[in-house]
Amino acid sequence: MSLMLAEIHEQPAVLERMIRSEGRRIARFAESIKQRRTRLIVLVARGSSDNAALFGRYLLEISTGIPVSLAAPAVHTLYRTKLDLRDALVIGVSQSGEGPDINTVLENSRRSGATTLAITNEARSTMARIADETFLIRAGRERSVAATKTYTGQLMAFHLLAAALNGSRRFAEVERLPELASLSLGMRPQIETIVERYAFMDHCVVVGRGLNYANVYEFAIKLMETCYIVAERFSSADFLHGPIAMIERDFPVFLFAPPGKTFAGMKDLLGRLTKLGAETVVISSENAVLKAATRALKIPASISEMISPIPYIIPAQMFAALLAEARGLSPDQPRSLAKVTRTV
Amino acid sequence: MSLMLAEIHEQPAVLERMIRSEGRRIARFAESIKQRRTRLIVLVARGSSDNAALFGRYLLEISTGIPVSLAAPAVHTLYRTKLDLRDALVIGVSQSGEGPDINTVLENSRRSGATTLAITNEARSTMARIADETFLIRAGRERSVAATKTYTGQLMAFHLLAAALNGSRRFAEVERLPELASLSLGMRPQIETIVERYAFMDHCVVVGRGLNYANVYEFAIKLMETCYIVAERFSSADFLHGPIAMIERDFPVFLFAPPGKTFAGMKDLLGRLTKLGAETVVISSENAVLKAATRALKIPASISEMISPIPYIIPAQMFAALLAEARGLSPDQPRSLAKVTRTV
Repeated sequence: MSLMLAEIHEQPAVLERMIRSEGRRIARFAESIKQRRTRLIVLVARGSSDNAALFGRYLLEISTGIPVSLAAPAVHTLYRTKLDLRDALVIGVSQSGEGPDINTVLENSRRSGATTLAITNEARSTMARIADETFLIRAGRERSVAATKTYTGQLMAFHLLAAALNGSRRFAEVERLPELASLSLGMRPQIETIVERYAFMDHCVVVGRGLNYANVYEFAIKLMETCYIVAERFSSADFLHGPIAMIERDFPVFLFAPPGKTFAGMKDLLGRLTKLGAETVVISSENAVLKAATRALKIPASISEMISPIPYIIPAQMFAALLAEARGLSPDQPRSLAKVTRTV
Repeated sequence: MSLMLAEIHEQPAVLERMIRSEGRRIARFAESIKQRRTRLIVLVARGSSDNAALFGRYLLEISTGIPVSLAAPAVHTLYRTKLDLRDALVIGVSQSGEGPDINTVLENSRRSGATTLAITNEARSTMARIADETFLIRAGRERSVAATKTYTGQLMAFHLLAAALNGSRRFAEVERLPELASLSLGMRPQIETIVERYAFMDHCVVVGRGLNYANVYEFAIKLMETCYIVAERFSSADFLHGPIAMIERDFPVFLFAPPGKTFAGMKDLLGRLTKLGAETVVISSENAVLKAATRALKIPASISEMISPIPYIIPAQMFAALLAEARGLSPDQPRSLAKVTRTV
């Protein structure tokens, strides 16, 4: 078994560990954030961690009503701008905690008056040293170049923070995530069968929206880095503003369609893609969309949209890892990549 | 000649008209913004207008030091979140001014205490009626489905606003843009020759960074909607965090490489792509990168990075329009698209 697949299977245990070990620290930090009058949250990250930040962008804004911005690191590192970040919380997200650009943004933000938080897998990293507070992912060492357990661990950190900021009502839902992650792992046999069909796929589009928009980016990056597929990523709304013109007969489109606020729009898009003759692969618990898909990846439980991203990315992670193998590639050795990428 | 190409050629006149007709109104608005203590700028848009907003995101943050966020419309339209937008300036960008989701965000933002601004081509649009202030693009009717003159008009609106917020020193630079746009239009003969080579290109990647990152998205959307090419878009830094694994011998990569803060990074990336045997098409004034490219699109003047995006997108617009024709497609009639896309 590849390291990537092995680490995908570790996810329920990582999530469980985070709830147990970090829950209290996160709740305490949330209290301090509420006492300061935080007016802006800024997230800064790269790669898969940036995809997790995209989830945080939606979840924190929806949960708290505080505006959230995704930082543009170049503004700090290349254009050397000093931003007014009084009353801001700046959150860096990094598996290794060693991205020089991300750490520069955190340092600048601290000097500009922001409270800073690190979400990282490495307690002794530079990022953990710079930030005022650190939430640890506790995923153990991630040996696969393609991040999986640290991505869902980062989502969990955002879940715990949002639940704490929002009052404890959401904790009960979040505590179900290790069990829901296990259920998703049970989809492996159906995915093993389905990937055969895509052994020669050159390109595709991945679409989703809202809380699952981050998963669109994450699935696409996994297909790019482990399968070398040209995988485009769009929100269903952005997709309709131009890119849908690409779609012709048999063009493969992957859709995240959990029940909830984004469901009606995803169902409409699926109908439009079906009319265009596209090949559709739908990740959902809902028969209303699964039965219209060329291939269905059926999530075994109907999950509240708010906690759907972790159980919904797991079949996509398995799809990428198993498809890489079906294409004769090792998902653990993507060409041109190292585990820690240093950009400025 | 296609409508798209005709409208591409109208751009110097549109830019000139904007400076003359909107300059004073924009300067006055900037004064009022400075008097309020604006703590956050939020931009909201879709499609090509969203690409223009991505330019605004960098330019305004760099010019003013006020944090900028790109809105996630779903937070308002689907999740119905009430954000705390006191002391915020919320800017809607839309050619038609009739995007229901964009207008919902503007209405919500006004109710949440924000000052609102519309950047649109339609003086009588819903958006112009909702917003506290309107900057008009004055591009005349845009008949091509693929936006060109309204995109650069929107960039010009951000230039004028940033210059006004930043003191008048930058105005002299911005006033050169109509002339620089004309110079770029002179690249047409070399582009007519080069597009032949890409008549059968299925997919490609477009890369750039910082102030030209918006052009990456805009060039890619033009290739998708007029040529049906699967065109991925990345900042040079994000590209190194995973997607570069896709690149193999002859994989086409388009690079924006203006002189300035992003140049060294783009030059390094070009070197790496050359080693991987990629096909590189470089848009730049600088021989240091042009001579290493498979094909060079030489910008005829060395332009300060701050005002480079308009003169740099023009060859890309011509490339998409001429390539569509070389592929036997009409750039004016992209399949599956209408001029005004209404999403919620």
